[in-house]
Amino acid sequence: LGTLSFVGLGLGPDGVSLEGVKVLKDADVAYVEYYTTPHEPRLLEVVQKAAGRQLVVVDRDFVEDGGKILAEATSGKVALAVLGDPMIATTHGELRVRAIRSGIRTAVVHGATIASAAASESGLHSYKFSRTVTVTREEVGRLAQAYRILHENLLDGSHTLLLLEHDVKSGEGVTPSEALHGLLLAEANFKRNVIGERTYVVVLSRLGRSDQKLHAGEIASLRDVEFGEPPHSIVIPGKLHFTEADSISALFSVGPGSVHGNTETVKRTAQTLVPRYIEKTKKALESVRATLEPKYGPVLENVELYLRDAEAHLTNGDDELAMLSVGYAEGLLDSLNFAGLAKIDW
Amino acid sequence: LGTLSFVGLGLGPDGVSLEGVKVLKDADVAYVEYYTTPHEPRLLEVVQKAAGRQLVVVDRDFVEDGGKILAEATSGKVALAVLGDPMIATTHGELRVRAIRSGIRTAVVHGATIASAAASESGLHSYKFSRTVTVTREEVGRLAQAYRILHENLLDGSHTLLLLEHDVKSGEGVTPSEALHGLLLAEANFKRNVIGERTYVVVLSRLGRSDQKLHAGEIASLRDVEFGEPPHSIVIPGKLHFTEADSISALFSVGPGSVHGNTETVKRTAQTLVPRYIEKTKKALESVRATLEPKYGPVLENVELYLRDAEAHLTNGDDELAMLSVGYAEGLLDSLNFAGLAKIDW
Repeated sequence: LGTLSFVGLGLGPDGVSLEGVKVLKDADVAYVEYYTTPHEPRLLEVVQKAAGRQLVVVDRDFVEDGGKILAEATSGKVALAVLGDPMIATTHGELRVRAIRSGIRTAVVHGATIASAAASESGLHSYKFSRTVTVTREEVGRLAQAYRILHENLLDGSHTLLLLEHDVKSGEGVTPSEALHGLLLAEANFKRNVIGERTYVVVLSRLGRSDQKLHAGEIASLRDVEFGEPPHSIVIPGKLHFTEADSISALFSVGPGSVHGNTETVKRTAQTLVPRYIEKTKKALESVRATLEPKYGPVLENVELYLRDAEAHLTNGDDELAMLSVGYAEGLLDSLNFAGLAKIDW
Repeated sequence: LGTLSFVGLGLGPDGVSLEGVKVLKDADVAYVEYYTTPHEPRLLEVVQKAAGRQLVVVDRDFVEDGGKILAEATSGKVALAVLGDPMIATTHGELRVRAIRSGIRTAVVHGATIASAAASESGLHSYKFSRTVTVTREEVGRLAQAYRILHENLLDGSHTLLLLEHDVKSGEGVTPSEALHGLLLAEANFKRNVIGERTYVVVLSRLGRSDQKLHAGEIASLRDVEFGEPPHSIVIPGKLHFTEADSISALFSVGPGSVHGNTETVKRTAQTLVPRYIEKTKKALESVRATLEPKYGPVLENVELYLRDAEAHLTNGDDELAMLSVGYAEGLLDSLNFAGLAKIDW
C-alpha cells in the first residue's frame, strides 16, 4: 500500500520541520514544487542536505496533472514538498482528494505560512484578522471585491491581509504600489471612504526570508519606497489595540503618535449614501415645486414623507430600510420626469 | 549586544524547523514554555535531542514577568521556544516590544499554527476563514460575542474557527460539546437562525499530534461522540465550494450528499426583502400596463430597468444598492398613483 505525503517547507530556506525532513528522507520518491512564490536560492540545497537525498523539482502542470504522482503513490511512498503549508493551495487539496479516492494513504506535514507570519511580523493580533484577499494581475485594475472585503473588515475593526500574486515562471506579479493604487482607484469609483492617502498600512516583503523587509506608514508616505523583490503582502489594520500600536511603534521604530488604525473614517455604506441621496432629492424637490401643476402635489408630499422615513431608519441602524425609503422618494420624484410632467434638475 | 529569539515549535513533537533548531543550539540560554496548550509528552525530548542541549522549562508567570529573560538578553543570546507560532500569544508580543525598547535585538522563527492547520485538515480553503473566536471557560455559558461573529462570518459565506481554551496547569478547559451547547443556547436567546442541530461542524482534536482525531457532521450526529483529550477546536464552515465539499467527503469518508455548508438558513436582510419587493413591484407593473396612456411608457420601462438593477446588485452582494434600486422602481410606479395617472393594485 502506498502513501502520498505533503510536506510544508514553511518560510525561508530552513523552514522545514524535523518531521518534514524525516518524511522526505523516508520517501521512495521526493518532489519539490514552488511555482507560486519566489523561493530562496539556498532552499533546495538546504532541504536536500537535511534529507540526505536529491529532490525532483516539478512544476505546476506536473502537480495539477498528478498522474505520475498518483501512480507512484499507489505502491510506494511519495513525498511532495511545497512552500508554506501544503494545503493552502487548492491544487494540493484536490490532489489529496484524488489520492484518498484511489485508496492511497495521505499525510500532511504542516509548515509556517505567510498568513500567521504576517500577523506576527506586523505586531498585530492574529485572531483579529478577517478575510484574506488575493490580488491578481488580472484584477489589479478593478479591485471591486477586494475593496468590498476591506470595507467589511474595517467596519468591524478587523485587520486585512492582502496577498499579492506572483508567478515564478513568468516573473510577473503585482507590486505593493500597484495593489495600493488599485484600491485607491476603487475608492475613487465607489467613494465609501474605505481607503485613502492617510490609510495606515504595513508592507511585508520577502517575509520569513533572510532579506525580509518591512515598511509601515500612511500610504502617502510609502509612495517613494523601493519594496524590492517579491513576494510581497500588505496588511491594512482595522482598529488597533494599544498593545498593537505599541508593537508597530517598537517594530518599525516610529513615534507612537504616528501609528494609527483605519476605522475612524469608515462608515457603513448606508451612512455614507443615505444622507447624500436625501440632500440630492431635497434639492430636486425644491427645483420642481414652483412649476409643477398643483394636482400633482401628493407626489411631492410623499417624497417629503419618505425622506423623513429614510432618516429615521438610518438613525435606528436599519440600513436596508433607509436605502429603500430614499430610493422610493427619488423614484416618486423622477417618475414626473419620465412621464414628461416636470423637468427635474438633479 | 544581546539577542532574544522566539522559536515556534509548530505542531506535534517534531514541528520545530531547522532554523529553530539552529537558534536553540546557538543560544546561551534556551527556555521552553507551553502553558496554554497540552503538548506531546515526547516534545521536550525531541527538541532537546535535535538542539543537542537541555531546555529550561518555564511557566506563564516567568514569561509574563520577563525580568530574567530581558536581563540575560541584554548581553547574551536567549531563545524562548513556544508551541505553534511565537507571536500568536500576546504575552510574547509584549515581551518582544519590551526587549526592543531595551535595545535588545529580537528575532522570530515561525512555526505552523493551529489556525492554518485547522483549515487544511478540515478540507477547507484557508482564505475563506474570517475572524477566529476563542471560547473561554468563563464565557462558555454566554457566547453572545462568539454567536455574533459566527453570524457575520456565515453571512458572507466565511468559515469560522473556534479555539477552545485549555489551561495546562489547572487541567481545566472547554470541551467541544460545551462550546456547541453554548452556541445553541445563544441561538435560543437571539433567534437569528445562525446555528442549530443541523449545522455542519468539524471538530478537531489534538491537531497536528500523532493521536490527532477529526470528526465531521451535523451537531445532532456528534452528540454522543467521545472527543478525547484536549486541545480541541471547532470549524463551522460557511458556504462550501464544491472542492471543499469533496475534500470533506474524502477526508472523513462520508457520502458527498451528507456534507453541507451552513449558509442556507442564514440570510442578510436584503436577501429576504429585495426578492419580495421585486415580485410585488412586477405584479403592480403588470396590473397597470394595459390601461396606462402610452405617453407614460418611459416610466414603466425604467421600472423594469431598475428591477433588473436591483437583482444584479443583490447578486453582487451590494445590498444597499439593491434596496435603493428596488425602492426607486417602486417609487417610479407609485408616483403614477399619487399623480392620479393610474390606479395601481399593489
